[in-house]
This record gives sequence, structure tokens and C-alpha cells, in this order.
Amino acid sequence: MNKSVGRLVSILYRKNQVYLNQALKPLDITATEMSSLLCLYHSDGVTQDEMSHYLLIDKAAIARAIVSLLDKGLIIKEKDDVDKRANRIYLSIKGKQLETSIRSILKGWNDLLIEDIDPKDVETMFHVLEKMVLRLEVLDLKPEGAKHD
Amino acid sequence: MNKSVGRLVSILYRKNQVYLNQALKPLDITATEMSSLLCLYHSDGVTQDEMSHYLLIDKAAIARAIVSLLDKGLIIKEKDDVDKRANRIYLSIKGKQLETSIRSILKGWNDLLIEDIDPKDVETMFHVLEKMVLRLEVLDLKPEGAKHD
Repeated sequence: MNKSVGRLVSILYRKNQVYLNQALKPLDITATEMSSLLCLYHSDGVTQDEMSHYLLIDKAAIARAIVSLLDKGLIIKEKDDVDKRANRIYLSIKGKQLETSIRSILKGWNDLLIEDIDPKDVETMFHVLEKMVLRLEVLDLKPEGAKHD
Repeated sequence: MNKSVGRLVSILYRKNQVYLNQALKPLDITATEMSSLLCLYHSDGVTQDEMSHYLLIDKAAIARAIVSLLDKGLIIKEKDDVDKRANRIYLSIKGKQLETSIRSILKGWNDLLIEDIDPKDVETMFHVLEKMVLRLEVLDLKPEGAKHD
């Protein structure tokens, strides 16, 4: 097979990042900051390491996003009750209020991508992409040490 | 539709980066450096700006990759004959020699992703992803000013 999943996925991902960075400007957050917030919407109170692992974004990039989100008052950081060395990240009220706007931007992007494509084919694509993601879960690829640039 | 193309594509892209950064270690290049080389395999002698535009990776990240690839002797930089301010990037012999290994790593990744999935479904997925990429070409999303972190 001459076609490359990696190439298509890379193009879509980068276009996705560019689109999101533009679309998110009115909310004053970047695509990586949005991913961090989405992680918290899914599971409030994670540590930075857990966030890095969940999002597969390296620790340095997550650390930069956290500093910026703290600065913007969208999250708060608290020492873990048990492990005093660990910090847990929580959404602030302002951070929680952004969720609807973020979801709506993501939905707009999704709708733009799939409009005019046969819904049955879109369904098959989702099915195949999900199968590939599940397969990769088993491989347990970790971002540590990998450059995310 | 509740499913998000962006989410699946992001997961696949990040796993792709992590996998590639690991698989490329024996070649001593990162995933971004590999993308720069692939751009040159496609079109030797481009400028850094053209590379940034073609790969949709921001100029700063491309600049870092170019410095590193120069340092490793995989590319050479030459002043443009006409526009003396522009530099053109060419593959060195050593850079050209890497192509087979890089293509083989990419093929390995691709095969891993699609093995055991119905080839007809894989074909449909390619078709839909390509349609989405084509649609995005029209939108002309540019990486300038966008953070690629």
C-alpha cells in the first residue's frame, strides 16, 4: 500500500492546530492550553504528569501551558493531601465557564471537516481510526524523553 | 455527531510522533527533522519558508530542525542565485542515503496501524481523510503566528 496514514494524519493534525489557534484567539488560549483544559473537563484534579501522559504531550510543553493557564486564572494548583511533593491541577470558575465555547469551536471544526462527505463513509473512517487508536493503546507509547516540537 | 475527528487525529498524531522519535533514534534524527528531510526528498532546494508552508510547521521549529540537520551533515544551505537574501536547502549525500531507512520506518508504522483491519474499510478511511485534507487546502490555513507546541 502506497498511502500513508501518518502523512494524512500529520497534515490533518497540523491544519487542526493552525485552525484551533486561530479560532481560540477570542478565548485567549492556544491549542495546547485547550487540550489541557479538555483534560481537566474530563478529569479535574489530575497532576501535571498525568496530564502529560493522558494527552501524550511532553512534560515541558504541559508545564508551559500550566504556567500560562495559571496566569490567566483559568486553573488553580494545589498540593496533594497525601503526597506533598505532587501538585494537583483544578479548573477555576473562569476555566469551567470556557467549556461551552471550547466545545462549540471543536464542533465547528468537526462539522467543517465532515460536511458533504457520505455519513456512512465518515462512520467507517471513525471506526478505523478508533481501531488504530485502540491498537496503539496496547503499545503503551510514552511521551517521556520524546521531543514534541 | 458526537465523535470528534480532531480528537482521534490528535491521538494518532501524538502516538505517531512518539513512535517515530523512538524508531528514528538509530538514525539520530527527530520526527520534525525527518519531516524536513521528507520535504527535501519531495522537492530538493526549497527555502526554509517554503518548507514551513509545505509542512505546516512554524518557522521557529523548522529553523531548529535545519540547524540540527546542518550540524549532522544531512543537508547543505546555499544562497539563492537570484535572491541573495534567501537560502536554499539541499540534501547532502549523507542525507540522501537516509531516505530508504526513513521510508522503511514509515512503512513499518503504517503497516502496524492497518494490519488486521478490513482493507476495504482502510480504503474508505484513506478516501475520507484525503477528502478532508483537500477541503482544508482550500481554506489556506497558514502556520505563521500560530504556536506549534
